[in-house]
Amino acid sequence: MPRYTAPTKDMQFVLHDVLKVTEQSIPGYDELDADFTSAILEEAGKLTSDVLTPLNAVGDTEGCTLADGVVSTPTGFKQAFAQVKDGGWPGLDMPEAYGGQNMPIVIGTAVGEMFSASNMAFTMYQGLTHGAASAILAHGTDAQKDTYLPKMVACDWTGTMNLTEPHCGTDLGLMRTKADPQPNGSYKITGQKIFISAGDHDMADNIIHLVLAKIAGAPDGIKGVSLFIVPKICVNDDRTLGARNGVSVGSIEEKMGIHGNSTCVMNYDGATGFLLGEEHKGMRAMFTMMNEARLGVGMQGLGQAEVAYQNALDYAKDRLQGRDVTGAKNPDGPADPLIVHPDIRRALMDQKSFAEGARAFLLWGSTLIDAAHRAEDQAADGLVSLMTPVIKGFLTDQGYDMTVKAQQIYGGHGYIEEWGMSQFTRDARIAMIYEGANGVQALDLVGRKLMQDGGKHVMAFFDLVKGFIKDNAGQDPEFDADFLNPLKAASKDLQAAGMYFMENGLKKPNNALSGSYDFMHLFGHVCLGLMWARMGKAAKTALENDAADPAFYQTKLHTGRYYMARQLPATALHLSRIESGAQTVMALDAAQF
Amino acid sequence: MPRYTAPTKDMQFVLHDVLKVTEQSIPGYDELDADFTSAILEEAGKLTSDVLTPLNAVGDTEGCTLADGVVSTPTGFKQAFAQVKDGGWPGLDMPEAYGGQNMPIVIGTAVGEMFSASNMAFTMYQGLTHGAASAILAHGTDAQKDTYLPKMVACDWTGTMNLTEPHCGTDLGLMRTKADPQPNGSYKITGQKIFISAGDHDMADNIIHLVLAKIAGAPDGIKGVSLFIVPKICVNDDRTLGARNGVSVGSIEEKMGIHGNSTCVMNYDGATGFLLGEEHKGMRAMFTMMNEARLGVGMQGLGQAEVAYQNALDYAKDRLQGRDVTGAKNPDGPADPLIVHPDIRRALMDQKSFAEGARAFLLWGSTLIDAAHRAEDQAADGLVSLMTPVIKGFLTDQGYDMTVKAQQIYGGHGYIEEWGMSQFTRDARIAMIYEGANGVQALDLVGRKLMQDGGKHVMAFFDLVKGFIKDNAGQDPEFDADFLNPLKAASKDLQAAGMYFMENGLKKPNNALSGSYDFMHLFGHVCLGLMWARMGKAAKTALENDAADPAFYQTKLHTGRYYMARQLPATALHLSRIESGAQTVMALDAAQF
Repeated sequence: MPRYTAPTKDMQFVLHDVLKVTEQSIPGYDELDADFTSAILEEAGKLTSDVLTPLNAVGDTEGCTLADGVVSTPTGFKQAFAQVKDGGWPGLDMPEAYGGQNMPIVIGTAVGEMFSASNMAFTMYQGLTHGAASAILAHGTDAQKDTYLPKMVACDWTGTMNLTEPHCGTDLGLMRTKADPQPNGSYKITGQKIFISAGDHDMADNIIHLVLAKIAGAPDGIKGVSLFIVPKICVNDDRTLGARNGVSVGSIEEKMGIHGNSTCVMNYDGATGFLLGEEHKGMRAMFTMMNEARLGVGMQGLGQAEVAYQNALDYAKDRLQGRDVTGAKNPDGPADPLIVHPDIRRALMDQKSFAEGARAFLLWGSTLIDAAHRAEDQAADGLVSLMTPVIKGFLTDQGYDMTVKAQQIYGGHGYIEEWGMSQFTRDARIAMIYEGANGVQALDLVGRKLMQDGGKHVMAFFDLVKGFIKDNAGQDPEFDADFLNPLKAASKDLQAAGMYFMENGLKKPNNALSGSYDFMHLFGHVCLGLMWARMGKAAKTALENDAADPAFYQTKLHTGRYYMARQLPATALHLSRIESGAQTVMALDAAQF
Repeated sequence: MPRYTAPTKDMQFVLHDVLKVTEQSIPGYDELDADFTSAILEEAGKLTSDVLTPLNAVGDTEGCTLADGVVSTPTGFKQAFAQVKDGGWPGLDMPEAYGGQNMPIVIGTAVGEMFSASNMAFTMYQGLTHGAASAILAHGTDAQKDTYLPKMVACDWTGTMNLTEPHCGTDLGLMRTKADPQPNGSYKITGQKIFISAGDHDMADNIIHLVLAKIAGAPDGIKGVSLFIVPKICVNDDRTLGARNGVSVGSIEEKMGIHGNSTCVMNYDGATGFLLGEEHKGMRAMFTMMNEARLGVGMQGLGQAEVAYQNALDYAKDRLQGRDVTGAKNPDGPADPLIVHPDIRRALMDQKSFAEGARAFLLWGSTLIDAAHRAEDQAADGLVSLMTPVIKGFLTDQGYDMTVKAQQIYGGHGYIEEWGMSQFTRDARIAMIYEGANGVQALDLVGRKLMQDGGKHVMAFFDLVKGFIKDNAGQDPEFDADFLNPLKAASKDLQAAGMYFMENGLKKPNNALSGSYDFMHLFGHVCLGLMWARMGKAAKTALENDAADPAFYQTKLHTGRYYMARQLPATALHLSRIESGAQTVMALDAAQF
C-alpha cells in the first residue's frame, strides 16, 4: 500500500528560509515562527499519513453508492471526517467569528497540500465547503453568514458549487436553470446541474449548494446569471433543520478516478433558494470560489505529484533490477536497485524538482493572497490574480505528467491497481479539467490577465525577476551560471512571447490565442525557475552560515541545478511555437479535418 | 458511444503516393496495386468499425473473470473472434504453407492499426498469437512448425509470451522458473510468471505458451535462459488434444485499462515443455517475438491516438460553446462549435499531425521489414532494427499524450466513463510499459543500437535524410522553408546529440545514459519530420499532377506544415538536455533523495 510522509522539513524551508514569513509585514505573520508552524505541520502530517492515506485506496475501490436517493461514502470516510472536524482542520484559515482559527492562507495551503496528497477524493468534501463558505463570507448578508458559516466552518454542513449543465460547461451563458422570485424574497430554483462534486453524501447534517441560475427576465448570456444558496435541508429561522428542500441526486457519475468523491447529477425541482450577492452578478460571486478553487486545484496537482514521487522513490530504492554500468552498487545482492540507473534518476529528478518548485510557488502565491486580504496590498492582489491560471494550469498539467512518470518507474506493477500508482494518475487527471479546463486557464491568462490594468501586473512580475537577478548577480560565478543565467534566459523568452502577442495578437487575436497554452507553460517554467533561484540562494546562505543539516541544503542546490539545466530550457520551445503564430494552427477549414 | 472509421484513404496515400509500394523491388509488392490494397483495407475497416468497435466499451466494463480456474472473456468477444478467424485476418501476413495468406508485413501493419484502434484489448489475443507463431516459425523444428503453426495461424489455438516473474521484469537474468530435462527430450517447467496477456480465455481450443526458463546447470544470468513451448492442453502425436498440462491461472490482475484482455498470473507445476531453438539461447528466440511485438505496441500507440482523435474531432465539431473571437461562425445557434477556438485547433492539429506522421513511419518501417525478410536486404534490416526502440518508445509516449489531449477536449465529459475517452487513455497507458518499458527502449537505442555494426545504421539514416533534402532542395522556396529547412535543423540536432555521446559517453557512459530518453524522442521527431517531408513532397506532386480531390492533398500539406512548425522544434530542447550531461542527473547520492 502506498505511503505518504508530509514534507514538513521542505515546507519549513520555504516558509522560513525562502519566504521568511515572520519578517513579512502581513498581520498574523509575526506569530508564524518555526516552532509554531512546526507544531501545526507535524500534527497535520500525522493525521494525513495515519488516517487519510490508508483510506485513499478504499475510496478508489469502493467508490460512492446511490441507493434510494441517498449517497453513501466509502468505508471509514465518516469516521475520518469526524476526526478531521474534531481537529478543527476545516476552519484553520477561517475567521474566529465563525469558529475558525484565523490562520493565514499560507498555512492553509501547506496543510491543504498534505490533505490533497494523502487523499484527494476525501479532501474535496471539505475543500468545496471551504470554497462555498468563502463565497458566503465575501458576498452574504450578515444573516446569511450567521446562519451558514458557523456550521460550514466546522464542516457540520458541507458545501458545493453548481455551475455545469449538460449542454454548458465553460460557456455558462447558455445556462437554463431558472430562479423564480417568490413573494417572500426567496426563489424557486428549477433545473439540472451535472458534475457536482460532493453533491450528496452521508457525512454532514446538511449540504449548502451554491447554484448558478437565471432569474426570469434576466439579460441574455453570462450577464444574466445569479448565484443562490440552496440548502439540501431547509433551515428554520431558529437555525434548526426543517423539511427536505426540492433538490435530489439524479445519479452518481462513473469516473476515471476520485471515486471516493460523489460526483452527482443534481436535480432542482422548485427548490427554495436565496440570492447570494446581487441579482445578475452571480459570476462575480462565483469567482470568489473559483479563484480559491483554482489554487486548490493547482495544489492537487502538486499533491498527487508529491505522493506519487514518494512511492516511486521507495520502489526505485527497493527494486533490484540490472547493474550500474559504472560498477555494481549492491555487489552482494542479485542486482542493483533501480535508482542507480541514469534514466530512473532523470525521472525521479524531474518529479523532485517539480514538486519542490511547485510547493514554493504555491506558498509564495498564498503569501500574496494573505497580503491582499490582510494588508490590502493591491499589487500582491494583481500579481496573484495574474498567476492564478498559471498555478492551476501549469501545476496540474505538470503534476499529472509527474504521476505518469512515477507510475512508469514501477513498470508493469504501475499498471495494475494493487500498487496504487494508477490511482494517483487517474485522480490527478481531473485536476487538468475541472474549475476551468486548462485551455480555458490559458485563455484567461492571455486574453484577460496579461493586459489587466494596462499590463501592470506582468510588468511587476518581470521587475521582480530582474530585481532578484540584479541583487544577486556577480557575487558567485557558480550561482550565476547555475541559477541566474538560466533564469535570465527563460525570463527573456517570456518577455519575447509577450512582445509577440503585443505586436501580432492585438489586430489578429488568433495569433495570441494559438500560443496561449504554450504561454501558460512558459510562464509556469519561469515561475518555478524564479522559485528555484530563490531557494538556491536561501540554501547557499544557509550553508554559508553553517546551518545544521548541510546535506539538506546541498540537496536543495543540486535539485535546483537540475531544474535549471533540464526543465527550464523548455521555455525556448514554447516561445518558438508561440512565434509561429496562428498560421499553421488555423490553416484548415473545419470541414477539412 | 465512440466511433472508429478506418483511415483507409490516408493509408492508401502512404502506400501509393509516398512509399510507392508497387515500385519497390520486394517480392510480393508488385501485387499491391491500389485496387487490391483498397479491397483489403475497406474490408478490414468495415469489420473493425462494425464488429470490434462496439465491443471496446463492453470489454472495458465487464473485464475478464476467473471462476473455477477458467477465464471468461466479455460478452460478444467469442462471436467476434470467430468472425475475425472466419475472415482469415489472423493469418494475413503468415506463410501459405501454414494456412496464411502470405501478404507483406506492410499490409499486416495497416490492418493491424485498425484492429488495435478499434479494440486494443480484443486484438491482443491474436497479436500475441502472431508473435508466438513468428517465434516458432523462426526457431522451431519442422515437427514443431507442423504441429503448432496451422492451428495458430488460424487462431484456433492462441499464443502467449511468458517472461516476467514477480521479482524480475527487465532483468530477466534473475529468472527462477526451472526446466528439468526428461528422458524423452521434453522438460518439466516449474515456476510462476506474471503479467501474462491473454494467459487464459475461452475463445480457443488450446493456448500455446512460450515460456522462458532455466535448465538446471545453465550459466548464470541471461545467458542461461532457454525458451520452451508449453501447451495448455497437451498435443498428441496425431495432433489431437490430450490431457491438461500442468499449467494453471493463479489470478487475473486488476488493471488501469485493457480490461478486455485477461492479464494472468500463470503457475507452471511441472508442466511439460519443449525446447524452442537452442539451449540457453532463449533470449535470442524470444527477441524474434519481442521485435515484432515492439512494432505492434508502437502501432497500439498510434491506434489509440487515432481513435481518440476521431472522437475528439466529432465532439469539437458538435459541441457548441463560446464564440469565435474573430466573428461568430454559427450565428444562428446559441454558440459556435469548439473547433473555432485556436486552442482546440492546436490540440486537434497536434493529434492529427502525430497520427498521420506515425502511420507513415510505421508503414515505412514495415516495408523495411519486408525488404529484410523477403529480399534479404541487410541494410533495411539494420535500419529497422535501429528504429524499433524509437517506434515503440516514441509512438507510445506520444500516442498516450495524444489520448490525453483528446480526452481534454471533452472537458468534464472526458473524465466520466460514459463517453469512452477515459478508456482510450487508460488503455494506451500500458503501451508505454510492456514489451520493455520506454526507458529500456531508450537504453537499447543508445546503449546498443546506435553503435551496432560500427554505427553503420545510424549513418545510413542520416544519409537518407540528407539525400532527401539534397534531391528536393532549391526547387520551391516555400517547400524548402516549410519542410526541408526544419528537417535539416532537426537532423542537425540529432547528429549533434550523437556527437555528444561519442565525445562524452564512451569514457563516462552516464553522460550518454542520462540523455537516452531525450535521444529517443529527438530521433522520433526527426523520423516523423522525414515522413512529413516525404508526405509533403508527395502531396505537392499530386497537386502538380492535378490529382483528384485536391483538398485532400492541401490538407496534407497544411498538416505537415503544422508538424514542422510546432512539433519538430522539440528537437532543440531534447538536445539541450542531452548536452547538459550526467552532472545534474547523477549529483545526488541515493540517500539524499
